Amino acid sequence: MQRIGIFGASGYAGIELTRLLAAHGGLTLAFAASERQVGTLVGDLTGVGGELGRVAYVGFEAAREAAKSCAVVFLCTPPEVSKPLAAELVAAGVRVVDLSNAFRLGDGTVYGLTEVNREAIRTAQLVANPGCYATAATLPLVPLLRAGLVQTTDVVVDGVSGASGAGRRNEESYSLVEMHDNVRAYKVMTHQHQPEIAQSYARAAGAPVDVVFIPKILPFARGILATITTRLAPGVDPAQLLATLRAAYEGEPFVRVCARAEDADLHAVVGTNLCALGVTCVNGRVVLLSAIDNLVKGAAGQALQNANLMLGLPETTGLVGLRRFLP
Amino acid sequence: MQRIGIFGASGYAGIELTRLLAAHGGLTLAFAASERQVGTLVGDLTGVGGELGRVAYVGFEAAREAAKSCAVVFLCTPPEVSKPLAAELVAAGVRVVDLSNAFRLGDGTVYGLTEVNREAIRTAQLVANPGCYATAATLPLVPLLRAGLVQTTDVVVDGVSGASGAGRRNEESYSLVEMHDNVRAYKVMTHQHQPEIAQSYARAAGAPVDVVFIPKILPFARGILATITTRLAPGVDPAQLLATLRAAYEGEPFVRVCARAEDADLHAVVGTNLCALGVTCVNGRVVLLSAIDNLVKGAAGQALQNANLMLGLPETTGLVGLRRFLP
Amino acid sequence: MQRIGIFGASGYAGIELTRLLAAHGGLTLAFAASERQVGTLVGDLTGVGGELGRVAYVGFEAAREAAKSCAVVFLCTPPEVSKPLAAELVAAGVRVVDLSNAFRLGDGTVYGLTEVNREAIRTAQLVANPGCYATAATLPLVPLLRAGLVQTTDVVVDGVSGASGAGRRNEESYSLVEMHDNVRAYKVMTHQHQPEIAQSYARAAGAPVDVVFIPKILPFARGILATITTRLAPGVDPAQLLATLRAAYEGEPFVRVCARAEDADLHAVVGTNLCALGVTCVNGRVVLLSAIDNLVKGAAGQALQNANLMLGLPETTGLVGLRRFLP
Amino acid sequence: MQRIGIFGASGYAGIELTRLLAAHGGLTLAFAASERQVGTLVGDLTGVGGELGRVAYVGFEAAREAAKSCAVVFLCTPPEVSKPLAAELVAAGVRVVDLSNAFRLGDGTVYGLTEVNREAIRTAQLVANPGCYATAATLPLVPLLRAGLVQTTDVVVDGVSGASGAGRRNEESYSLVEMHDNVRAYKVMTHQHQPEIAQSYARAAGAPVDVVFIPKILPFARGILATITTRLAPGVDPAQLLATLRAAYEGEPFVRVCARAEDADLHAVVGTNLCALGVTCVNGRVVLLSAIDNLVKGAAGQALQNANLMLGLPETTGLVGLRRFLP
Repeated sequence: MQRIGIFGASGYAGIELTRLLAAHGGLTLAFAASERQVGTLVGDLTGVGGELGRVAYVGFEAAREAAKSCAVVFLCTPPEVSKPLAAELVAAGVRVVDLSNAFRLGDGTVYGLTEVNREAIRTAQLVANPGCYATAATLPLVPLLRAGLVQTTDVVVDGVSGASGAGRRNEESYSLVEMHDNVRAYKVMTHQHQPEIAQSYARAAGAPVDVVFIPKILPFARGILATITTRLAPGVDPAQLLATLRAAYEGEPFVRVCARAEDADLHAVVGTNLCALGVTCVNGRVVLLSAIDNLVKGAAGQALQNANLMLGLPETTGLVGLRRFLP
Repeated sequence: MQRIGIFGASGYAGIELTRLLAAHGGLTLAFAASERQVGTLVGDLTGVGGELGRVAYVGFEAAREAAKSCAVVFLCTPPEVSKPLAAELVAAGVRVVDLSNAFRLGDGTVYGLTEVNREAIRTAQLVANPGCYATAATLPLVPLLRAGLVQTTDVVVDGVSGASGAGRRNEESYSLVEMHDNVRAYKVMTHQHQPEIAQSYARAAGAPVDVVFIPKILPFARGILATITTRLAPGVDPAQLLATLRAAYEGEPFVRVCARAEDADLHAVVGTNLCALGVTCVNGRVVLLSAIDNLVKGAAGQALQNANLMLGLPETTGLVGLRRFLP
Repeated sequence: MQRIGIFGASGYAGIELTRLLAAHGGLTLAFAASERQVGTLVGDLTGVGGELGRVAYVGFEAAREAAKSCAVVFLCTPPEVSKPLAAELVAAGVRVVDLSNAFRLGDGTVYGLTEVNREAIRTAQLVANPGCYATAATLPLVPLLRAGLVQTTDVVVDGVSGASGAGRRNEESYSLVEMHDNVRAYKVMTHQHQPEIAQSYARAAGAPVDVVFIPKILPFARGILATITTRLAPGVDPAQLLATLRAAYEGEPFVRVCARAEDADLHAVVGTNLCALGVTCVNGRVVLLSAIDNLVKGAAGQALQNANLMLGLPETTGLVGLRRFLP
Repeated sequence: MQRIGIFGASGYAGIELTRLLAAHGGLTLAFAASERQVGTLVGDLTGVGGELGRVAYVGFEAAREAAKSCAVVFLCTPPEVSKPLAAELVAAGVRVVDLSNAFRLGDGTVYGLTEVNREAIRTAQLVANPGCYATAATLPLVPLLRAGLVQTTDVVVDGVSGASGAGRRNEESYSLVEMHDNVRAYKVMTHQHQPEIAQSYARAAGAPVDVVFIPKILPFARGILATITTRLAPGVDPAQLLATLRAAYEGEPFVRVCARAEDADLHAVVGTNLCALGVTCVNGRVVLLSAIDNLVKGAAGQALQNANLMLGLPETTGLVGLRRFLP
């Protein structure tokens, strides 16, 4: 049993991570830190039973000390908290998976999109866990960009997300009444995941990719559906698209390439660590669909997948056998 | 054209009332007061066009003066605001419809359940507009209690309501994520509408009625479904139940007595000023179902219905022809 | 009072049209034809009261005769029914608004996108009422294409729609459980509205426009949000985009150009005949958002708007003062 | 590894059972029978991976033979199918858990409400798995009835349920549009679970209990909230209610007695095999709230819990560590 700890443990990602840990078997929760919930039992907030449920949330100060003896520490904290905290932990030799967007851009850290960056993650000191939208948007296009099958200009990424992606909110605009039966775009072409997506695309293409990202919020708790639109590169046979995706993800435990693109929907993934994706091409225009559970593959699940790699555990530990929740 | 004004005009009931006014034809909005929205145009918040949409919200202080020349003033304010404000307006000779629960209990004011209290409302100085749950719970049982057809002990009222009934909220517990896919009871047997329901039942029965009220909140914007359970009084023919309801509400423009109790559902009423109700009896046990739109018949619609009576206008002005919104 | 009739009156568009008629004032319902509901009262299905509610649905055979004396007949029927029926009615001199996609493509009929084609509609014998997605997708881009402000290649239209757009369904895949908490793409780049959108864009641009359309279905009853992505034409000042939209739609009663593109959401329009639209531009990439109620501006409302024009009535009759339904 | 089989494996309960089996570890799926899905892979319908996912659905005829070598067979079939099939299997010496209502009433079979009937289930040949509403309604009241703390007259059970409880449906009335934003009562006092509830109450009380049951359907996929209203028995201290529930369910792995009754809501249980319950008492009136996931504790989870007992496995195998799905 290896010890891990969580800062920001009472947010939605922190709670999901705690729930996943409960079924992991190889990790012990050394601490769950939440300034808001000091003293509350983990079980009361997460529904987790057993010994794990009887752990009480502690403040960040107490957690700092405990963190030093952890094999991995997860930061489910806002970027402004993650930045100094990760620096401090790394300086103390602690390995960190940060779920915020503090470290995703640039070359200083290991970007934790597991399927793309597996080897670097194994030995990383600090893993920048990808954004939820970015995970959904990146997985389907990377193999096609690497193979030069699609154009790198005029790529459009549309992403709809359940509201848990925005975290706990006490604002009127996130109230049930204000969100119910609505779908609303926000931060169009200015969302922090747009450069993150562009960076992953560029790394895959070996050249800049011209992409815009249009996020929208849905009145559900969970799930992201990303739609990526681009063009076939000149001279490419459309049949190569699906074949390339299948080859790229053959044997990947958490990527399902759908024969019909439209089968990549929320029901296929919510509750699991899966990304379901598919591609269709008509007259040279290419549309990819990609679905994840924003709290699992889009946050806590991928963080655990990365931690498994960092700790030399089987990558799928605690992440297979997660039930799909919806029909 | 008679002049009316609204205090608390930017809450959900105030907005609904403004929208209803837009189609009324016989009333002019002298002021819409909202401390939160001073300067905003009514149209921007409500979607109402024309002259009404170009009115700007004013503060309460400015509205106080304008209120004095109004034929009726609506208070869509919390009870602690309504109490002194109504007193002040009444003292100045202004007629008031108060939508809060400040004045509903006791004999000092006219209780504005229109179908039950029509004549008193016409000449009232201050009308206490009924609570939304209380409206739904009271209309079906009053005729049966008056006729002595049901027992007055062990009455159970269960009420499920859309979240707009709780007003605008910036609390985490009212956020989409916290409410989605949930139904949750609250204030069981301690909700402020329980004594209001008990009072109406007692007035109809001519004796105390032993009733408990169990409210629950649903993750919808609108609609209340009340379920009332009691017993047939000894010796009563169950067929009298439906017959009595039909007789009581024959000719009532806003009460629909359903042949099948189960047809009284939210779809039958949401968007309209209707109360759809029905009754079923098995082995002496009586169940009544009753549905309203909490923002219309449960708040702004009934307030306007009452104001129409107070102003000598046809009671249905601005309230017929409201489209049902759901299939 | 002019007489109108409806074929296919018990579908969602037919019901919405009936409800709108109830508040119109200038039209009499000569017949409501529905093979499924022969004998049912209109009021029982629609909630509409008064004389209109007491009309009984008739079969198509009986309606054929009555149709001949109508000033306008609405066809809320599938295209395979509309095609011969419209031909027959037109041959008999009856004016027709067809809500199906039977007549939308090509030059033989008048395309009923009111704001774009107003003059031709006034005198049309047969109006092809636009598709719901097409209405939402076309209104925002037409003025920009006409002015040459955006590129005509690589246009992407993403459309999410409430489920009433698919009509009444008794299929498992449209059941609540199968749709709940899901968003699912369908007919990607093969939907029948794609050529319809392309045709409108081409007419506005005066040249072919290369567009793909990606429709998705949402688990709501009503509402469409269309997202259109393209590029600024070379040398165009981005400020011209909003200015051009404002100029194009100044004085239009049913188009609201939003200062912030993101304010074009379902809440802004559901229940009304409005199209709310907005535009944003970053680094030469242009995103337009456009929201309508698919049953009103996307079907029955626009059909009535067109009929008003055909009958010489004020275009907005029966269509202003429709309440927005959501906060 | 013991072998089990499932008839009716492609319905919602059958799928949930398959998903639970995937994480069980001690059971092998000998067959999954579904006339509708013969040849489809289990993984394609359920999302389950590994060997289990590669099993293909077979027809009932083929399954009949395989069933004979199973340690337990689950029937997720309608009662008219379950009746002869269970008789046939029992005659062949196969042990059966039937999830239909074919065998719940009367004394011929073992009623599978685990917490109430544990010892009889261990050795049962045929277990009648309880109805979902009945599970939620029975667990909170049985300890109070056994202890004589509440009256046995005028008990009212109100139950709201997600739509998966009604099974797969291809009827218009179960379509998204017809159910969305609605809550609708059905089979009021005539639902098949009313006698089932009454039977369990009577067994606990040792005397007939006068109970009515009012079911309602909610537009969610999962979850039941039952509200039970009765009276304190004369002379009972209200504090005994909670104390008795706590004593009754101390050590029970799947029953959570909430300190605040209102904490028994869907979020507390959906995804898990838990029943969360609570009680409140005001002026002698008693209200109990009880929440379960209708597909888990209300169907497949309890069936597996029972099978564990029948097979001599730890009762909680495959049922702990199920994540709560909602916040």
